[in-house]
Amino acid sequence: MEPENIEFPEITPPDDHARSAAIALHDKLVKPAGSLGRLEELGVWIAACQGQSPPRPFTRPRVVVFAGDHGIAVKGVSAYPAEVTAQLLGTMLTGGAAINVLAAAAGASVRVVDLAVDTEAPATRSIGEFKVRRGSGSIDVEDALTADEVRKAIRAGIAIADAEVDGGADLLIPGDLGIGNSTPASVLVAALTGSEPVAVVGRGSGIDDDAWMRKAAAVRDALRRARAVLADPVDLLRTTAGADIAAMAGFLAQAAARRTPVVLDGLVACAAALVAEDLAPGARRWWVAGQRTAEPAHALALEHLDLGPLLELDVRLGEGTGAVTALPLLMMAARVLAETATHEQAGVSGPLIAAPAS
Amino acid sequence: MEPENIEFPEITPPDDHARSAAIALHDKLVKPAGSLGRLEELGVWIAACQGQSPPRPFTRPRVVVFAGDHGIAVKGVSAYPAEVTAQLLGTMLTGGAAINVLAAAAGASVRVVDLAVDTEAPATRSIGEFKVRRGSGSIDVEDALTADEVRKAIRAGIAIADAEVDGGADLLIPGDLGIGNSTPASVLVAALTGSEPVAVVGRGSGIDDDAWMRKAAAVRDALRRARAVLADPVDLLRTTAGADIAAMAGFLAQAAARRTPVVLDGLVACAAALVAEDLAPGARRWWVAGQRTAEPAHALALEHLDLGPLLELDVRLGEGTGAVTALPLLMMAARVLAETATHEQAGVSGPLIAAPAS
Repeated sequence: MEPENIEFPEITPPDDHARSAAIALHDKLVKPAGSLGRLEELGVWIAACQGQSPPRPFTRPRVVVFAGDHGIAVKGVSAYPAEVTAQLLGTMLTGGAAINVLAAAAGASVRVVDLAVDTEAPATRSIGEFKVRRGSGSIDVEDALTADEVRKAIRAGIAIADAEVDGGADLLIPGDLGIGNSTPASVLVAALTGSEPVAVVGRGSGIDDDAWMRKAAAVRDALRRARAVLADPVDLLRTTAGADIAAMAGFLAQAAARRTPVVLDGLVACAAALVAEDLAPGARRWWVAGQRTAEPAHALALEHLDLGPLLELDVRLGEGTGAVTALPLLMMAARVLAETATHEQAGVSGPLIAAPAS
Repeated sequence: MEPENIEFPEITPPDDHARSAAIALHDKLVKPAGSLGRLEELGVWIAACQGQSPPRPFTRPRVVVFAGDHGIAVKGVSAYPAEVTAQLLGTMLTGGAAINVLAAAAGASVRVVDLAVDTEAPATRSIGEFKVRRGSGSIDVEDALTADEVRKAIRAGIAIADAEVDGGADLLIPGDLGIGNSTPASVLVAALTGSEPVAVVGRGSGIDDDAWMRKAAAVRDALRRARAVLADPVDLLRTTAGADIAAMAGFLAQAAARRTPVVLDGLVACAAALVAEDLAPGARRWWVAGQRTAEPAHALALEHLDLGPLLELDVRLGEGTGAVTALPLLMMAARVLAETATHEQAGVSGPLIAAPAS
């Protein structure tokens, strides 16, 4: 039986009318035109996503962490043993991980979903609702997932995005958790940007030169297999992604279908985003890049998506941490438009001479 | 009568013991060493400033806006008429300015002090407590202040820093407000970094080419006068600063004397910081650069102070806005150290292989 096709509705861009209204509003506020730089652009983008100017400050920003193990981890591509994935997932559930702390500081809540952690049963039933399998195939020599599994994973991502948006989330941040996940992510970026293995392989969680060479060999071998299925994003995810990254790609595409803005984090989220843009062209208009890390594949992915990063603080932890670090900027950008007085309200004179176009 | 000397106590650096403890704590948290990048460095600096690890999240971050007019404004160096200073000051007092909105979003409160706004009486008595004069001399042809005025202004800054620290402020952000203030700031930066006028003159609030040439001429003429008094920071402030910038320099030096960390904003704050480092050598160890703007003199000042910016979002409004935009990063950096679980607490395995030195 041929597996059922996965299709996304046509992605419509953020609202141009609200965008224009926000640009016009910025020019009326008590500050020189353009003087808040990227904060102004961000505010305009938020207004366009929400379809209203001024935009509402976000009331329910939500981090969803997609957890999964990767068969390739046994090849020694990470600085950490694979059991750390399950251990960190447990830490996130008790609120002790870095993403919990940063999200709390930024006013976001965190949901953790076990797609493919290599343990028998998830710690609690609710986080295992969408579990596809334990781990993934070792992508240097075999497919990550079966045809059924990859569809199940993408559908999980779609269902999660729907549930979050229906639950009131007005800003989504996908986080990653999985020892070894920067290897499949690097393969996806190399495949989709036409790059060589050495151009995408970074230090991940902090590997030494020997592990870097093992990782480069794994990426080289997996990339050969990936290139054979490059034309079909679902096949690409099946061959080289894993259920966590496949679900994240489905989540990102569906978030755009649901007209919900997203902040992207690091390499893994941006690799999933590259695939999601193939699954649902135009989805990238609904995303902002929270940051750029030193991972070379991350920079390549952002360039390919034509997204400029907000931060460059070298936050390379994953979990959504880099995106959450940028979240206060989005809150501020929205509030500036919503709350700053206009020249007219404040009785403040405008410029004497024309300001240069900003 | 010879004017009384202004002397600051020797500045002691942030605490090395707390710094070392914070570095050691970071290595125990459930994340690869160094994986939070600049956030880790920030957290370590905050711990050192507070003399305790983990650091406390800041409870009373405080913005102090130093307002003053500048005689040079009549030479057409700004895009705005001088009366806008008083108008914006009024807007800040009613909470409608960009700094009010951004500070509220970041959890900081705002105080506005009128040092030299060109109006008869300040809007309320409390903001005019430290008023030195109306405006300043036109620095291309005359001194900004008299010998008495400059001392009064610096002492005002010292008194304001003392009052804020005594009142519980645990993080200070000086903001600037004054049409034309980027001209004296550019002169100070050129004088103290040994730069030529064309290397420091930027677009300020958004001037056109004609105004840029008037500003460059003003900077050239003022710089000639500044270089004659370069050896004495108080004389330099008297000749080319204005009461608002002189007070800000005193404030920055005294904040360091009181061991209170500071986030610097844009060109004007960083010009004052250059002078404050001359007034109280070592003060810069108590400062972090919130951002770098496109103003060439701003980049020169940061380089001279050896401070790397947290943000590059082109926030060039002044008022402290760029520094406040970076404030959530400091809050997060402190909370990560204070609240993230350790490997031991979480039962999470450490790295298999040594991570590279970060």
